Amino acid sequence: MPRLAIQYLFVDHQLSITTMATVRIESIDFFYVSMPEILDIGDGSQDALLVRVRAGDNEGWGECEAAPLVSIASLVCPMSHSACKPVQASVVGQSLDSVHDIRRINNLVRTNSLDLLQADHTLSGIDIALWDLLGRRLNEPVWKLLGYRQSCSKTPYASVLFGDTAEQTYRKAKEIRANGFLAAKFGWGPFGTSSVRADVDQLHAAREGLGDEGILLVDAGTVWISDLDAARSRLDALRATRATWLEEPFVSGALAEYRALSEVSVPIGLAGGEGCHNYYMAKHMLDHAGLKYVQIDAGRIGGITTAKDVADYAVSKKVTYVNHTFTSNLALSASLQPFAGIEADRICEYPTELKPLAKKITKNTIARDAHGQVQAPEAPGLGMDIDIEGIKPYLVETEIRVAGKVLYQTPPLT
Amino acid sequence: MPRLAIQYLFVDHQLSITTMATVRIESIDFFYVSMPEILDIGDGSQDALLVRVRAGDNEGWGECEAAPLVSIASLVCPMSHSACKPVQASVVGQSLDSVHDIRRINNLVRTNSLDLLQADHTLSGIDIALWDLLGRRLNEPVWKLLGYRQSCSKTPYASVLFGDTAEQTYRKAKEIRANGFLAAKFGWGPFGTSSVRADVDQLHAAREGLGDEGILLVDAGTVWISDLDAARSRLDALRATRATWLEEPFVSGALAEYRALSEVSVPIGLAGGEGCHNYYMAKHMLDHAGLKYVQIDAGRIGGITTAKDVADYAVSKKVTYVNHTFTSNLALSASLQPFAGIEADRICEYPTELKPLAKKITKNTIARDAHGQVQAPEAPGLGMDIDIEGIKPYLVETEIRVAGKVLYQTPPLT
Repeated sequence: MPRLAIQYLFVDHQLSITTMATVRIESIDFFYVSMPEILDIGDGSQDALLVRVRAGDNEGWGECEAAPLVSIASLVCPMSHSACKPVQASVVGQSLDSVHDIRRINNLVRTNSLDLLQADHTLSGIDIALWDLLGRRLNEPVWKLLGYRQSCSKTPYASVLFGDTAEQTYRKAKEIRANGFLAAKFGWGPFGTSSVRADVDQLHAAREGLGDEGILLVDAGTVWISDLDAARSRLDALRATRATWLEEPFVSGALAEYRALSEVSVPIGLAGGEGCHNYYMAKHMLDHAGLKYVQIDAGRIGGITTAKDVADYAVSKKVTYVNHTFTSNLALSASLQPFAGIEADRICEYPTELKPLAKKITKNTIARDAHGQVQAPEAPGLGMDIDIEGIKPYLVETEIRVAGKVLYQTPPLT
Repeated sequence: MPRLAIQYLFVDHQLSITTMATVRIESIDFFYVSMPEILDIGDGSQDALLVRVRAGDNEGWGECEAAPLVSIASLVCPMSHSACKPVQASVVGQSLDSVHDIRRINNLVRTNSLDLLQADHTLSGIDIALWDLLGRRLNEPVWKLLGYRQSCSKTPYASVLFGDTAEQTYRKAKEIRANGFLAAKFGWGPFGTSSVRADVDQLHAAREGLGDEGILLVDAGTVWISDLDAARSRLDALRATRATWLEEPFVSGALAEYRALSEVSVPIGLAGGEGCHNYYMAKHMLDHAGLKYVQIDAGRIGGITTAKDVADYAVSKKVTYVNHTFTSNLALSASLQPFAGIEADRICEYPTELKPLAKKITKNTIARDAHGQVQAPEAPGLGMDIDIEGIKPYLVETEIRVAGKVLYQTPPLT
């Protein structure tokens, strides 16, 4: 890659003739980690794609909420044409001195990889790592770099899967309350896949387990795709059990069906947006889907940069912004940053059924305080310390060869 | 994969006790082919990802308009969770006896790979191959299986890049007319990247070269992203040169900007949609972007199945459907099928600057008839014969290893 070589020379030259603090991105390393066995359940904490970016003396970490192998391929693939370049081509060698540089890099990736569909998911983890790196370099938490004055307290909801039976769901709900959570979200599992009757039982079990004062959130996991009637037939039970929201009755694109459901679902608010992989998708949901809650995963939408743009737009539309997170505490910190300073947006997703791998990714955690609340960390960057030794046992050695050349090989984890 | 093994046993059992003609999909093979050198220009014919599907005695071929390596990874990647499975998990072992089966397989992929972003591009080539296979098996052209009674004549436009200079563009336009094309589309290259003045010169050069009666189409290749003013500043020159459409002034998601431009661009119609990778994205453009022409690439939107759904919706919205194609004649046939029978939608994209590789993919071509028109072929399936020997020199040997296992290796091309 002669172009990158020239850029490196340029850096050396710059550094030798000035004392300016410009740093350039020297490397992006992707680490694919996985539980030894992946179960066929809606639990996204079973594997992860960790991203390490290095620039000068600094390092930042991020996580893509994405298929690891596919995102690795999109990082390193050969160019197909001018608008289908590997993601790394728009990142390595770029300067990283300010927030402005991160947005510039985002724009480069989006333009140069316009026709590379996976690029949005891949960019997400890189963008998160860039914010972490810049925050550490400037000794500020990311939310401060985003322009917020404080990291507000959020009420975490325990995010779990429905039990296979209503009885299991009841027990899960009891346990969540016993663990001090005020709010719980039940999702996926059998919900929506069989009869209305079965779902009614599940909802009542969840409400009974949570008790009268608990906040009940329900996640249909797109199970009805775009079937308005299927969703409508669950509204009575959602009302009877006083659910606060119904999440993802449909796939993200089914704007008209979301809108139609929102017109008859009162007082149940609709929540959705986790599938959005760019700003426009989220904007269309905010403009046309009748949402009361927009749920954004910084690890999918393009990172913290894009997520913050959505948070700003949501404020203007009087829609509540909520993080979507079902993986590690690194991902949780990243997803909290974009709305850390929005006091009115109080509720936050807080995964409580993480697989051991997801718990091992960071040495520290975002724990609930004495009032049961959580905040985005005050420490520089994302405020999370990666546990290199903790991750190592889960590392999945990966190699991609194209035309006799090794394009990717799991880098040393040190 | 014990589940697939059971399915195979089931087939054998079925066949042994009945004489029904059920066939099941036995294999999906991806072939990555590329020119020896990829140039940093907006020419998508420099590489290709070919898809071969086999079921019983039948074979079908398709092409993904996508980054080859990334799509290969999405075919074979390990499962991350229940909604992030490799694409092949939803295809291999499925029955393929009717049009209904193809839609069923589409739905399976979309559900099981909901969180695998690249899956839509990958599904596209597979879906195309399934239609080709089914058409050959039933001895019918695909457009007939789609419900059309005839394959209507379309007026092809020569689709080329703007020259680096206005003079080059003029010469290209002259040549296109000399080659008997009534219509030409110029796109990408320097257009939109420097001054309005430079673009004005390019447009006048194209019009002059085409002559008064030529149909001039202009493709901005998303160069202004969402900058309404930049697009507006070119409208006078587009009107002066009597362009029929302005294509992709913005990225596909910029619906509000498309709409705003459409309100001041008359008589220039807006065209867009090639970036759509599912039905909903195209529907949103048809609902909210003020398009006069929707351009769908069957190799990106999920295949012929989804493209036909968009064509039907476009008819209901009185928007002209146009194929988007900038690769092989296999891709051209696939992209013609979804609107082959819509008599009113006459114009069709017809790439004329194909790299040698793209020309070698098929033995036969979709040639213009005595009236300069083209049609989707009358022969079974897509009507194209793959040139195995022609492709071989361009094959890119690829290997993906994960945790010591080879998940993908370029299959034998025989």
